[in-house]
Amino acid sequence: MDMARFIALAMASLTLGLSGQASDIDRIRMEGLRQPHAQSLLRELTKGVGPRLSGSPGAAKAVDWGVARMKALGFVNVHLVPCKVPHWVRGKAESVSMSIGDRKVPLSACALGGSVATPRRGITSEVVEVQSLEEAAALGSRAKGKIIFYNRPFDPTLVNTFSAYGGAVDQRSQGAVAAAKVGAVAVLVRSMTLSQDDAPHTGAMNYQDGVKKIPAAALSAKAANMLSASLKSRPVVVQMKLNCQTLPDADSASVAGEIRGTTFPDEIIVMGGHLDSWDLGEGAHDDGAGIVQSMEALSILKRLNMAPKRTIRVVLFMNEENGLRGGRSYADLKKAEKHIAAIESDAGGFAPRSFGVTGSESQLAKVQSWLPDLKTVGIERVDKGGGGADIGPLGARGTVLIGLVPEGQRYFDVHHSRNDVFEAVHPRELQLGAIAMAMLAWRLSEEGI
Amino acid sequence: MDMARFIALAMASLTLGLSGQASDIDRIRMEGLRQPHAQSLLRELTKGVGPRLSGSPGAAKAVDWGVARMKALGFVNVHLVPCKVPHWVRGKAESVSMSIGDRKVPLSACALGGSVATPRRGITSEVVEVQSLEEAAALGSRAKGKIIFYNRPFDPTLVNTFSAYGGAVDQRSQGAVAAAKVGAVAVLVRSMTLSQDDAPHTGAMNYQDGVKKIPAAALSAKAANMLSASLKSRPVVVQMKLNCQTLPDADSASVAGEIRGTTFPDEIIVMGGHLDSWDLGEGAHDDGAGIVQSMEALSILKRLNMAPKRTIRVVLFMNEENGLRGGRSYADLKKAEKHIAAIESDAGGFAPRSFGVTGSESQLAKVQSWLPDLKTVGIERVDKGGGGADIGPLGARGTVLIGLVPEGQRYFDVHHSRNDVFEAVHPRELQLGAIAMAMLAWRLSEEGI
Repeated sequence: MDMARFIALAMASLTLGLSGQASDIDRIRMEGLRQPHAQSLLRELTKGVGPRLSGSPGAAKAVDWGVARMKALGFVNVHLVPCKVPHWVRGKAESVSMSIGDRKVPLSACALGGSVATPRRGITSEVVEVQSLEEAAALGSRAKGKIIFYNRPFDPTLVNTFSAYGGAVDQRSQGAVAAAKVGAVAVLVRSMTLSQDDAPHTGAMNYQDGVKKIPAAALSAKAANMLSASLKSRPVVVQMKLNCQTLPDADSASVAGEIRGTTFPDEIIVMGGHLDSWDLGEGAHDDGAGIVQSMEALSILKRLNMAPKRTIRVVLFMNEENGLRGGRSYADLKKAEKHIAAIESDAGGFAPRSFGVTGSESQLAKVQSWLPDLKTVGIERVDKGGGGADIGPLGARGTVLIGLVPEGQRYFDVHHSRNDVFEAVHPRELQLGAIAMAMLAWRLSEEGI
Repeated sequence: MDMARFIALAMASLTLGLSGQASDIDRIRMEGLRQPHAQSLLRELTKGVGPRLSGSPGAAKAVDWGVARMKALGFVNVHLVPCKVPHWVRGKAESVSMSIGDRKVPLSACALGGSVATPRRGITSEVVEVQSLEEAAALGSRAKGKIIFYNRPFDPTLVNTFSAYGGAVDQRSQGAVAAAKVGAVAVLVRSMTLSQDDAPHTGAMNYQDGVKKIPAAALSAKAANMLSASLKSRPVVVQMKLNCQTLPDADSASVAGEIRGTTFPDEIIVMGGHLDSWDLGEGAHDDGAGIVQSMEALSILKRLNMAPKRTIRVVLFMNEENGLRGGRSYADLKKAEKHIAAIESDAGGFAPRSFGVTGSESQLAKVQSWLPDLKTVGIERVDKGGGGADIGPLGARGTVLIGLVPEGQRYFDVHHSRNDVFEAVHPRELQLGAIAMAMLAWRLSEEGI
């Protein structure tokens, strides 16, 4: 597409709503677009701090960064909200390979978060491929001593990638338990992605009391395809060695900072994401994006010297990925405070498309009444239902929960993998989400909910 | 974001509309999602054919590819629609550098499409920076013998990137004429992008009868920033050498193929994009995406053995970028045929967000009534106004014009530059656009407009 032919078209779809004096909402948008800082914050968090799995030195560094950065941005009441977190470490890089005749073919793999290690010499066993937990259970004694390979891919007919994820992730989260129950010695799980590259995607897995803990690793989509193709013609033996372990719970914390409300300081609006990330990649989309959008949203108001009626607080939650301890401890330790609403961004730093609201019908309607503001930065809808994992525990006490929903087609290409790096985040898409959050927080602070 | 916590959220925002027997629209979506072919078509066009500027061997190869591919897909009445096209060639790579004292600093640059060459020895002259055509005109005699450097960036406060483009592109299209009128010897133009990398973006520029033709090149955003910073402290001399030339108009053609209508075969619905591209990059988003989406959309119907009531025709238009000769010749040579509607995709292969419709209010309302179908693949709105450059000439005869509008934040990062390659196109985002077009063409064929 070229030339001025499209000016008319473009202008027609532009809604500025400027008329004489700039409204508060216009000022927020203009500041956010003219002086975008979300990307530079993200660079600090991803390139400066790096990956930050709960309990790791990276996570501790991220906490320090959050405190220092919030103070530098001029937020007040910057403080830690302590929590104990699981402390799982990957150890020396894992190795997985398959033997085809005399040939040994390496398979791109990574231990799942929370997995036990293999014995030091590794596990070498025949592989059985299944498509579901039910199929694994049905193997019965045929699974004994084998490695079970869960290979059900994302359902490609689901346009919503989170639905596709939701429809496949039981293999990762519960596959080891189902396999151990029928006597398998380990599990391999196809990565939770629709993309076809060679990056394995990690993520949390669970054990169950009374069921043997067996090692669990994710295979890249490419490795899963290779293994599956090989299994079609003959039995395949896989060697796998995982060096991970779970250490005692570690001390950690979420980080909070705010602008104090002028009229109703005791009514709090939270904006947040999670500070921890998986150890592969840099946690850029998951959830560096949500962290820096929350900070940038509040910083926009601060830079404009806007004084909200209610307190707007940014919370960088610790340990969403493998425990949710930060979200739980926050709700618990802050239960004396009145949280009227909480906004979370934890679905990637892509172009914002909608907000989802969990609250009463009248609360939903109120947020929907602000849609004309939000449309100016690309929000198309305010839907019923939504929120975020970290703010979830606040919901039990009547806090309205709101989740930012960005364009989702690329999210699971990067999610929990080495692909989740700074460079995969588009600066304008990231910033538009921050501005939308600032607008929403401002409306909540001025009008209540 | 992690785990099954979000299944509920994801399911809530999913609209499948399945109930017993699959509707035509459901079958289109399911086929498109299960057997996506847009990406493999795009690979053929970008990696197999490559760049395809009008008049080039690449463009001729693209025409051959279009014919062969449409036949292989089972389309009928596959034929060429001839046109004469401008034939501009870049020649040996251009070089632009600035002298700061004794130091010569290379500036990443490319000739603008249609530019004349510099003299063989190049042009060496002092640079004057301006922000607009008006500022260039106001230079008067001070511009004599100088190189005028247009450096007005995209307006960052415009969320719609096409609006930002529309607000800056006069520098590229008309800058040389304005500069020549005040005696300048050449122009440099900041690339039409909001990104900050070192890739120069080409694009069409114009001359005017009676005004001297002076050479014109684009600087990358980085080079423009560097040059502008240098100019702040002292005069800067730039050397530039362009080796481009305009050859006599060449014979070329658009390519058409179709599924014939069963009930009203003489009523035609066109789907298309443009087959030509700029010579930098691979023309993947601009407009390989539109080409393969159109072909894939019709191919989905063909694979399902769906027999449309009206004829659905794919047209791969030649020469959108620097002449629009294909769009004009098509409208002219096909004027005896009744075109009831035309759909164009030429805004990048990103996730689809809306359709824009140019037609009567009742025609718009009819397309809007199909929104529930389109929503299932991510189309949020059907707006008034829109279309595409290539189908524009059909509009004069009452054809309803419809443009696919994808998410736009990344488009001008790649547009007309070496960044516009196959790898920058996301396979699912591309495919969703193709499915949306197939649904829309099907509704048009069954219900008319």
